[in-house]
Amino acid sequence: MQVYQAPLRDMRFVLHELHADDGHGDLPAFEEFTPDLLDAVLEEAAKVAQDILLPINRSGDEEGCTLENGVVRTPEGFKAAYEQFRQGGWCALASDPEWGGQGLPESVNKLVEEMICAANVSFSLYPGLTHGATTAIEGYASDELKRAYLPKMVEGSWSGTMCLTEAHCGTDLGLLRTRAVPQEDGSYKITGSKIFISAGEHDLTENIIHLVLARMPDAPKGVKGISLFLVPKYLPKADGAVGPANGVSVAAIEHKMGLKASATCQLNFDDSIGWLVGTAHKGMEAMFTMMNTERVSVGVQGLGLGEAAYQAAVWYAKDRIQGRSLSGVKRPDLAADPIIVHPDVRRMLLTARVYNEGCRALGGWVSRALDAQKHSPDPEVRQRAGDLVALLTPVVKALFTDLGYDSANHAVQVYGGHGFIRESGVEQYVRDARIAMIYEGTNGIQALDLVGRKLGAHMGRYLRPFFHPISNFIEANGAAEGPLQPMVQGLQQAFGALQLSTGTIAQKGMKDPEEAGAAATDYLRLMGLVGMAYCFAKSVRIAGEKLAAGDADADFYKAKIATAAFFFDRILPQATVCFLAIKSGKKSMMALEEAAF
Amino acid sequence: MQVYQAPLRDMRFVLHELHADDGHGDLPAFEEFTPDLLDAVLEEAAKVAQDILLPINRSGDEEGCTLENGVVRTPEGFKAAYEQFRQGGWCALASDPEWGGQGLPESVNKLVEEMICAANVSFSLYPGLTHGATTAIEGYASDELKRAYLPKMVEGSWSGTMCLTEAHCGTDLGLLRTRAVPQEDGSYKITGSKIFISAGEHDLTENIIHLVLARMPDAPKGVKGISLFLVPKYLPKADGAVGPANGVSVAAIEHKMGLKASATCQLNFDDSIGWLVGTAHKGMEAMFTMMNTERVSVGVQGLGLGEAAYQAAVWYAKDRIQGRSLSGVKRPDLAADPIIVHPDVRRMLLTARVYNEGCRALGGWVSRALDAQKHSPDPEVRQRAGDLVALLTPVVKALFTDLGYDSANHAVQVYGGHGFIRESGVEQYVRDARIAMIYEGTNGIQALDLVGRKLGAHMGRYLRPFFHPISNFIEANGAAEGPLQPMVQGLQQAFGALQLSTGTIAQKGMKDPEEAGAAATDYLRLMGLVGMAYCFAKSVRIAGEKLAAGDADADFYKAKIATAAFFFDRILPQATVCFLAIKSGKKSMMALEEAAF
Repeated sequence: MQVYQAPLRDMRFVLHELHADDGHGDLPAFEEFTPDLLDAVLEEAAKVAQDILLPINRSGDEEGCTLENGVVRTPEGFKAAYEQFRQGGWCALASDPEWGGQGLPESVNKLVEEMICAANVSFSLYPGLTHGATTAIEGYASDELKRAYLPKMVEGSWSGTMCLTEAHCGTDLGLLRTRAVPQEDGSYKITGSKIFISAGEHDLTENIIHLVLARMPDAPKGVKGISLFLVPKYLPKADGAVGPANGVSVAAIEHKMGLKASATCQLNFDDSIGWLVGTAHKGMEAMFTMMNTERVSVGVQGLGLGEAAYQAAVWYAKDRIQGRSLSGVKRPDLAADPIIVHPDVRRMLLTARVYNEGCRALGGWVSRALDAQKHSPDPEVRQRAGDLVALLTPVVKALFTDLGYDSANHAVQVYGGHGFIRESGVEQYVRDARIAMIYEGTNGIQALDLVGRKLGAHMGRYLRPFFHPISNFIEANGAAEGPLQPMVQGLQQAFGALQLSTGTIAQKGMKDPEEAGAAATDYLRLMGLVGMAYCFAKSVRIAGEKLAAGDADADFYKAKIATAAFFFDRILPQATVCFLAIKSGKKSMMALEEAAF
Repeated sequence: MQVYQAPLRDMRFVLHELHADDGHGDLPAFEEFTPDLLDAVLEEAAKVAQDILLPINRSGDEEGCTLENGVVRTPEGFKAAYEQFRQGGWCALASDPEWGGQGLPESVNKLVEEMICAANVSFSLYPGLTHGATTAIEGYASDELKRAYLPKMVEGSWSGTMCLTEAHCGTDLGLLRTRAVPQEDGSYKITGSKIFISAGEHDLTENIIHLVLARMPDAPKGVKGISLFLVPKYLPKADGAVGPANGVSVAAIEHKMGLKASATCQLNFDDSIGWLVGTAHKGMEAMFTMMNTERVSVGVQGLGLGEAAYQAAVWYAKDRIQGRSLSGVKRPDLAADPIIVHPDVRRMLLTARVYNEGCRALGGWVSRALDAQKHSPDPEVRQRAGDLVALLTPVVKALFTDLGYDSANHAVQVYGGHGFIRESGVEQYVRDARIAMIYEGTNGIQALDLVGRKLGAHMGRYLRPFFHPISNFIEANGAAEGPLQPMVQGLQQAFGALQLSTGTIAQKGMKDPEEAGAAATDYLRLMGLVGMAYCFAKSVRIAGEKLAAGDADADFYKAKIATAAFFFDRILPQATVCFLAIKSGKKSMMALEEAAF
């Protein structure tokens, strides 16, 4: 059963307690947002997620989107929900007040995103893609374009898309064929076909603003000849109202494994009028700005789905009676004990739980850095925070989506046969979560980004804001006692493996890029495990302090320690496997001849 | 794209070469089946799978089964395919010639099952369930029942089911409520509702024979009061023809995540006439006979789907061009290189490949033991083979289905965005494979069976036919050189971890069953990894001998060595994680209070 309740207590812990010492300081830009105000935002968001979005999640999956005579219809209830969402100001939460946004910190916004994704990930794509598009427009478009489009997009009455992929090119955008022919008035005529366009066409907003990668006639070959264009579905009139159609049509909507209430479209652009965003032939740069923002959000999708799946599984494990506890009958009043008494059921629940708490904690660190990168008055802090964001963006995207998928699968397993039945609602989490490991750059591409672009760049500069706090923490807590003691040891060991692996890859990969490629996925996972271990150990230290001080919320802190212990016992040992895999190098991965596959 | 070709070369290797020294000897019962004849059977089976079953796999998923006015219809083409399958004698392949079967070895039958599941796992359930039901009837029913039902079931004109689960009880059958009231003529009237009944109702056969667990009025409580009954859909007339309906009706068919062309039914029995199979109140014993046969077959489902998914991914990885090789352009004639040049794509392909080859090899060992257990003239060999089957049945079921699911997911990942689209055919493998980890006893239950019923039974007797050959192999190959050398070392290390873990669990679990429960899943995986490692190392030794002797099939043996090297480098290290998880014990798994979840 889909029973999601936003984990507000853990969110407040991540927001206010866990990363208070991250060196980003209190940002003057957010002075007006008191902790109480932020908590109130989270509480309101929880209501939106639970009361508006959750009730149309499973029905949306059953009904899906439809395309008829070129018109895409979202499932019943989506239009009304979107309107409520929009009017509540939720589209504009973290957007710049200059364009009508509320300017809330990303550290709050990402928690809100988690709730929305947990409740209804298909729905999340509609405002989510708009947010990505506005980021690119804010960063790269002319003032004229900004004025014409941003206010409507920020208020959510117009939505946005990212039109990158074509049938023959996804990862390798250098191959793309969509053409942009310059016109005398400074605009361009765009012609080509795009696939996999999330929210490419739908009935939620009065206009849809496509950001389209295309190639000008004189463009250099490959990725260095790609430009970014803004192409509205309807051309705005001088007064800002929606005008004539602009030659954008839907060829088909995709029939997908999941995410069925999100309209994934094949779009044809036929001499559609567009305007250049940013510099000619430098579209990839603007695209990556948009993409990097989206990558963190896609990671959060994984986390949201993992949390929703976990809660569904907990509900079932407490409700379903089957068999008796191995340590003696627990509920003599019932014909059997609830299955949560069984160690193997707890193994699955706790695995999902530590994945969720670990990712939420690590994600909180990154989203605070997103805020500091943008708003710190100190240029050094801005750079350090930006470096951390650059390093961890691929980790958040790949790790969170991999683990979210695992959690969804654990939830199905807890349900047993009932989990395979659509009615239970948990198999939907598996199907919905599957795409997050693929889109906005497959998780393999994230790993290549990490080892290829982040690890060695600027003499390892990106690594420092991650490595230093961890090594400081280990040093400061080397003499810890109680539950923290074995955790610091575990962290130290895994961190050592990460440092060694970093050296190995830097050295071998310099001579042979395939060595870096062969190590990439395991290296990303290893870094993710170390990041989560650091966050858990820090959490336990804080929990210990709170308990010692007689904090009223003892149950929360005790649970945090128990959860962390499971992580260190049962999950962190995977770091050893990653280390051994990296050490083994590329040889056995590249040896088998292509013909032998 | 679904492109399955049966891996006949590897199958012949497993059938004739790999386990020739397993001590089961040449069985006189199979004297007439020459290797050439068996190979011909495999070749014919491959044609059936590829030409008859594969073409209706994706259409069957799209169309699904329908229920209208109490009649279940299978998707288009299923009825014709089943008739061809039946007339070809494929229903009767491994059945007893006494009842019209062909009496082929299980070691061949399981390979044929793999092909059928790879091509169309939904289809495989219809003859598969019949096979399970005939096993129970052969083993436990009266001669009269055998004569009345087995010939029709073996020829496939009547099919069978296993009716165990009720809405409130799956794993814990002691809770079941279906009643069986004895009648004066020795029959029983069966009343109750069953759910999740695979092939419970369909249009492929003229009658359906349900094996139903039910409770007599005077039955003891719990599992010790359950009896097994044979309940036909239509009562046979004296001449064997189909007679009047027997009060069995379909309340609903389930809407499932996958396996959509297999009709999963809710059945109501309303004073249906049934006959006792086996002894009153001892139904669980007969049920487990049927279930254990099915468990190995469900493992093979995982393997079949893993192989189909692997082949689809290989096809795509060779066809799809995207990006350039990190070691320089490989296909200057194309706009980009096929993605199989990328290390991370190879990592996913090779992972699926070693899972498939490893499981096929380990499965081959078990199915040869199934034959020896039944047909060896030597009682000692029979017992030893039976012990190996008992030990490895849960391993085959859980390991193969876990890994098959992983392989299907890797295939989707290789396809990228296209893999999430139904048209590609690969996401179906994920959805179809998901249930195999659940039904016939969840994989968690398999693990409990292994540690609870197999590990310590008869002073560890079940372990011996697994441990002894492995320790002999390690001893005999301790001085190996070349590629085998590190593999023997890897095997030795993992085997050591398995032995230590066995001792730990035996010791701790004796005092506290929850300790065994907390270790179960990791222990099963560890045993599976050791089993696969043993098979791979053995394969490499054989490959080395064949290559040294100048065998004409050098490509096959070279590929086997390269594949095995990947297993030892990249997969076997997981044994360490299992070992550490087992070592950590139950504490962190049981510490979190129920209310804190």
